[in-house]
Amino acid sequence: MKIYVIGIGLIGGSMALDIKSLHPEATIYGIDTNEIHLAEALALGVIDAAATFDDLAAADFVIVSVPVDVALAVLPKVLDHIGENTIVFEVGSTKTPICEAVVNHPRRRNFIATHPIAGTEFSGPSAAIRGLFEGKTNIICEVEKTTFKLQEKALELFKSMGMRIRYMDPKSHDKHIAYVSHLSHISAFMLGKTVIDKEKDEQDIFDMAGSGFESTVRLAKSSPAMWTPIFKQNKKQVVKGLEEYISNLSNFKELLENDNYDAIFNEMQGVNRIREILNGMNSKK
Amino acid sequence: MKIYVIGIGLIGGSMALDIKSLHPEATIYGIDTNEIHLAEALALGVIDAAATFDDLAAADFVIVSVPVDVALAVLPKVLDHIGENTIVFEVGSTKTPICEAVVNHPRRRNFIATHPIAGTEFSGPSAAIRGLFEGKTNIICEVEKTTFKLQEKALELFKSMGMRIRYMDPKSHDKHIAYVSHLSHISAFMLGKTVIDKEKDEQDIFDMAGSGFESTVRLAKSSPAMWTPIFKQNKKQVVKGLEEYISNLSNFKELLENDNYDAIFNEMQGVNRIREILNGMNSKK
Repeated sequence: MKIYVIGIGLIGGSMALDIKSLHPEATIYGIDTNEIHLAEALALGVIDAAATFDDLAAADFVIVSVPVDVALAVLPKVLDHIGENTIVFEVGSTKTPICEAVVNHPRRRNFIATHPIAGTEFSGPSAAIRGLFEGKTNIICEVEKTTFKLQEKALELFKSMGMRIRYMDPKSHDKHIAYVSHLSHISAFMLGKTVIDKEKDEQDIFDMAGSGFESTVRLAKSSPAMWTPIFKQNKKQVVKGLEEYISNLSNFKELLENDNYDAIFNEMQGVNRIREILNGMNSKK
Repeated sequence: MKIYVIGIGLIGGSMALDIKSLHPEATIYGIDTNEIHLAEALALGVIDAAATFDDLAAADFVIVSVPVDVALAVLPKVLDHIGENTIVFEVGSTKTPICEAVVNHPRRRNFIATHPIAGTEFSGPSAAIRGLFEGKTNIICEVEKTTFKLQEKALELFKSMGMRIRYMDPKSHDKHIAYVSHLSHISAFMLGKTVIDKEKDEQDIFDMAGSGFESTVRLAKSSPAMWTPIFKQNKKQVVKGLEEYISNLSNFKELLENDNYDAIFNEMQGVNRIREILNGMNSKK
């Protein structure tokens, strides 16, 4: 089995590691414009060899795991080069633009649009982890547009990695993910900015910040190169989510300014049901 | 050694557990208006016996670990009942009001104002954990107002629990903690509210939320009864922090609306140094 990973970072690299464990006979080829990442991936054994687009005709699987703006240019080029039985999937955090980018491509039926909801705040080949996808959800969009036997091959691979499959149209995916993922990142980045701007002397943060702050700003370690194009592609939904978040924060501030502590208590108590929601998330893992 | 814990929740209970390990000969007495918590703490072995304020004259240590509004009434009452060599400390997340509440009390020198920066999002005696304070910072305010030999007794206890000691005036404490703790809680509560309001069907969150969302909203599980009075007592600083946070979020939203993606990239890249700050926090643990 020949697997080609285009963009060997956290997601592509972690998939490569899982495929190596699941299919010891498979050869993993890496394609990356970043020579350092390519060398690093080889040194770490995340990939077996470097390759080029001209090799893709022989591919069983092609995993496109590049920033979502790059994916819009790379995916059609990949589909131009693949063989008849190659299955291609892309794993980015926005699904509408990528589905539109290939809607009329003659090889559209060799492509399956996916979003494995998995990751960490780190990036690059060294961030790749075996078992990253165990118990995670993989959202698949427009499944009906992929050849059935290639759907089966892809689903088998995802399930063997331990992923739960959910089907969704690209617009619903992008709307929901704006709230549960994209908004969380902006919340963390701007909280980090607010505290850093305030605390000129980092020592103050260093000494006084506890595990709560650490957890709330964790996502502010994320890669700007990965996240800027995500916010760009999902602009409409992210702006909408931000407006609602800002309005909730402003309302909380007004309640505080007006000494309306009963309402503040009730606001927090209402949100406490997030406990059950998060427990539900964990029980699934 | 006789230890009295007033308010046997996460912090008071965890201190009781550490003291039991460090001083097997010590007897831990609990005082709590919540009969269920008192029974639970006895059943869990967090305390050895229930007690009343009239017993405090015999106390070596009195730990006041109640919501910060309750503390303003309880602490003076405690100081009225203690013996000459009793050392009393309070562990709440705001320090200015509590220091003002006892500034003229004849037993002020038996009191030491502290804030151990430790905790979880859970509360009550069942949330008590042994070793919670290991490697954590304990902020001590107005140390000069505590009798020297009682300072020593308290510091010895804190250090034996593994805590790092930092000294700060109450106003600086309340200002800094508004940013690194209080603001994080409001950020998480309002993020949780925004997502819950949007996702009428929890299944959408359940299926699509990843570990990033979970980490960012974790503090939204916190107790409204504990946090409402904290926000009330630190109103001025919390409102100021919220204004700066909202302004940073609004600025980010405008950059997005104006398609200024270079600026968005730079905003995020600037905040990425939170990595080093958090690494610094962890290296201290």
